[in-house]
Amino acid sequence: MSYKNIKEQAYEANMQLPALNLVLFTFGNVSAADQQKGVFAIKPSGVPYEDLTVDKMVVVDFDGNSIEGNLRPSSDTKTHAVLYKNWSAIEGIVHTHSTYATSWAQAQRAIPIYGTTHADHLTVDIPCAPPMSDEMIKGNYEYETGFQIIKHLEALGLSYTEIEMILVGNHAPFTWGKTAQKAVYNSAVLESIAQMALFTQQINPQAPKLKDSLIKKHFDRKHGDGAYYGQE
Amino acid sequence: MSYKNIKEQAYEANMQLPALNLVLFTFGNVSAADQQKGVFAIKPSGVPYEDLTVDKMVVVDFDGNSIEGNLRPSSDTKTHAVLYKNWSAIEGIVHTHSTYATSWAQAQRAIPIYGTTHADHLTVDIPCAPPMSDEMIKGNYEYETGFQIIKHLEALGLSYTEIEMILVGNHAPFTWGKTAQKAVYNSAVLESIAQMALFTQQINPQAPKLKDSLIKKHFDRKHGDGAYYGQE
Amino acid sequence: MSYKNIKEQAYEANMQLPALNLVLFTFGNVSAADQQKGVFAIKPSGVPYEDLTVDKMVVVDFDGNSIEGNLRPSSDTKTHAVLYKNWSAIEGIVHTHSTYATSWAQAQRAIPIYGTTHADHLTVDIPCAPPMSDEMIKGNYEYETGFQIIKHLEALGLSYTEIEMILVGNHAPFTWGKTAQKAVYNSAVLESIAQMALFTQQINPQAPKLKDSLIKKHFDRKHGDGAYYGQE
Amino acid sequence: MSYKNIKEQAYEANMQLPALNLVLFTFGNVSAADQQKGVFAIKPSGVPYEDLTVDKMVVVDFDGNSIEGNLRPSSDTKTHAVLYKNWSAIEGIVHTHSTYATSWAQAQRAIPIYGTTHADHLTVDIPCAPPMSDEMIKGNYEYETGFQIIKHLEALGLSYTEIEMILVGNHAPFTWGKTAQKAVYNSAVLESIAQMALFTQQINPQAPKLKDSLIKKHFDRKHGDGAYYGQE
Repeated sequence: MSYKNIKEQAYEANMQLPALNLVLFTFGNVSAADQQKGVFAIKPSGVPYEDLTVDKMVVVDFDGNSIEGNLRPSSDTKTHAVLYKNWSAIEGIVHTHSTYATSWAQAQRAIPIYGTTHADHLTVDIPCAPPMSDEMIKGNYEYETGFQIIKHLEALGLSYTEIEMILVGNHAPFTWGKTAQKAVYNSAVLESIAQMALFTQQINPQAPKLKDSLIKKHFDRKHGDGAYYGQE
Repeated sequence: MSYKNIKEQAYEANMQLPALNLVLFTFGNVSAADQQKGVFAIKPSGVPYEDLTVDKMVVVDFDGNSIEGNLRPSSDTKTHAVLYKNWSAIEGIVHTHSTYATSWAQAQRAIPIYGTTHADHLTVDIPCAPPMSDEMIKGNYEYETGFQIIKHLEALGLSYTEIEMILVGNHAPFTWGKTAQKAVYNSAVLESIAQMALFTQQINPQAPKLKDSLIKKHFDRKHGDGAYYGQE
Repeated sequence: MSYKNIKEQAYEANMQLPALNLVLFTFGNVSAADQQKGVFAIKPSGVPYEDLTVDKMVVVDFDGNSIEGNLRPSSDTKTHAVLYKNWSAIEGIVHTHSTYATSWAQAQRAIPIYGTTHADHLTVDIPCAPPMSDEMIKGNYEYETGFQIIKHLEALGLSYTEIEMILVGNHAPFTWGKTAQKAVYNSAVLESIAQMALFTQQINPQAPKLKDSLIKKHFDRKHGDGAYYGQE
Repeated sequence: MSYKNIKEQAYEANMQLPALNLVLFTFGNVSAADQQKGVFAIKPSGVPYEDLTVDKMVVVDFDGNSIEGNLRPSSDTKTHAVLYKNWSAIEGIVHTHSTYATSWAQAQRAIPIYGTTHADHLTVDIPCAPPMSDEMIKGNYEYETGFQIIKHLEALGLSYTEIEMILVGNHAPFTWGKTAQKAVYNSAVLESIAQMALFTQQINPQAPKLKDSLIKKHFDRKHGDGAYYGQE
């Protein structure tokens, strides 16, 4: 009973993935965490979205141990666990194989900041973490994927509270946020930015990146003390 | 009560944006103006389309001051205000981040006039205004965006009554028209032209532009005294 | 009353265009002819598909004169009239600005026969008629468009009973067939072939065309005396 | 009565093709086999999906002879028959002209293994069988298509139980599996992989293939004794 809230959040957020056209079959998962309790609810592995219910969500602790639920949690559960354990300010994570973002991940390229749609959400290229070493892959793979994400952001000097999305090279995108719903929002935004960045390159292979003043202006419109977008 | 008409028009026109697949989440806005009264109704900032109602539309004057409504108007309100104040023949404006048009804007390229679909609506390449100076960006950004649009059309010797769409470099498209509905129509037309222009380039990088006689013929079919398209 | 049949056919066929995602707004039209009576029913000009009814179809003779109906017929009516008058074996014509076919038309390139989907329907590249001379454009434009189509097929030594689709350079596709329904089918097939041909080129710029034996095999499976596709 | 089971399976699986956006009109077919009885149920030729019923499925033996049903079976029936006769472990086959997979087939290129979405399903490039010789095409074409598929897998040293999808050069994809449902699943996965591989190439023409350790890891997550994806 005590996990009802995060199970409902995880269920609702998972159901948004097919509605937003971000997943084929079961190729994606969302979790919703309670940082106070040190647990998160996540999609069960390989269950079609149309068969999901709140009760089928699996509750797991930040070491990846199942706490509640009869089903096996997502095969990516340990990646989620590592991120929650290390990033105390987030309570939602999304992993998809959405078409355009995954194509950039497969191309092993960060997504250049070409326009204000991008700058409305982050001030730098969307990072692409390099594929892991063979040792990490052969070892505790999903666990290491979490650390690969954390280390890549650190190597770039970026904060996970400002940069809420990343590509894992050869693999696919991960996004996160204060809530599962925000993480889903970030996944859809990333997919749109990835699509427009591909077309921008095709229209003009020498397209320059956005200039600093415009990056700052658009980001500040939506974020920080002087933000004036939205109703809050 | 006196603004009921433009609020209804603005509501209906805003709801067409998701129906026409021109927006993700809240990334777009439409306004409907009354040039006689010097006011326009516009979408509130950051409110999801599914939550919109006629009553949530915000009425603003041509200097961008709120006249009626409890919500904060779109963050792009001052751009709309500048255009209405300077262009007395228009009563509708649309701003979106639609995929293909935004990609051309990010590429900082005008859309070449490649076919009759384009010529049915305008006789020149769809202009792309250059990004603004740092001073303009750091200053009254949305207000300056309006002037950037006006100045770019003037620099090209184009009339806003004939050219009802523009790309703002690095940013996204703006369209306008005699009514909000016509401005929405122009947004969808622009998106289709932008998509076909990209594919045309990919099929034939040396594709020539439309020749003058064909441009004139198609534009005149739909516009001016000799027009014979439609029922009027 | 005597034209009820072709008006119903024209109505049904026109309504398929938005259902098959082949038109934006009113950018397309279908006609259904009765070669015995020398008349055809066609979409009224500029009327949105959602407002169409059987009664709004306009009946026109093969010189383009309105015979029945209160509305102005499609602005492309004379092109249809010329084709029906010269090609006695067809009773359906479709014109659209569908995205991929129009992009090839704008690129002024015939669509290479790259695969069996293409060969199932025709044995040669999908022709692209060159833009007309300035004189033809300034003159009786839609009438001349019909002759441009006829002359281009003749110049290529092709028969309109075997080749039921063409691109008009800088403009868009026309398709036809024994019935309006078959002409609509051809429009959707053309759009799919045009899309796959673009992607084929992008995947392999040196992609060879289909070899003769495979072209003949696939076309004969669906057409001619030895056909064994379908139930007839 | 004895074929009710495979007819129902074939019907359900065929109806998934339009739902998954894998077919235009009738350009695809699914069969469901009973290896014990040496028969399979397949879509009738040229019948629109909206007109299909369980009773319209045609039951055919592994030499392609009709056993039950009033309609002519799919024109590709002999290809299915050859595969079932030679591959005793499969009971489902799908053929489509899905947009992206067909484009790779037309380009006559195997689809490079660029990412984990691909490696989740197979460990090698998706094979593309070369077009057949003129003799094979002019002869028993659909029968020879089956052998072309079998021979190409053998030439590459691949097992049909591990590699459940192939492109036939200049033609289109075939997929198979233990059930018709699994074969349909494979068709949708192939289409998604084909789409992302095209975009990956466009983003980075030098994109490297997935490294061996990552291929192995992802395949083993879903397949074999140590698999930990899903609920079984």
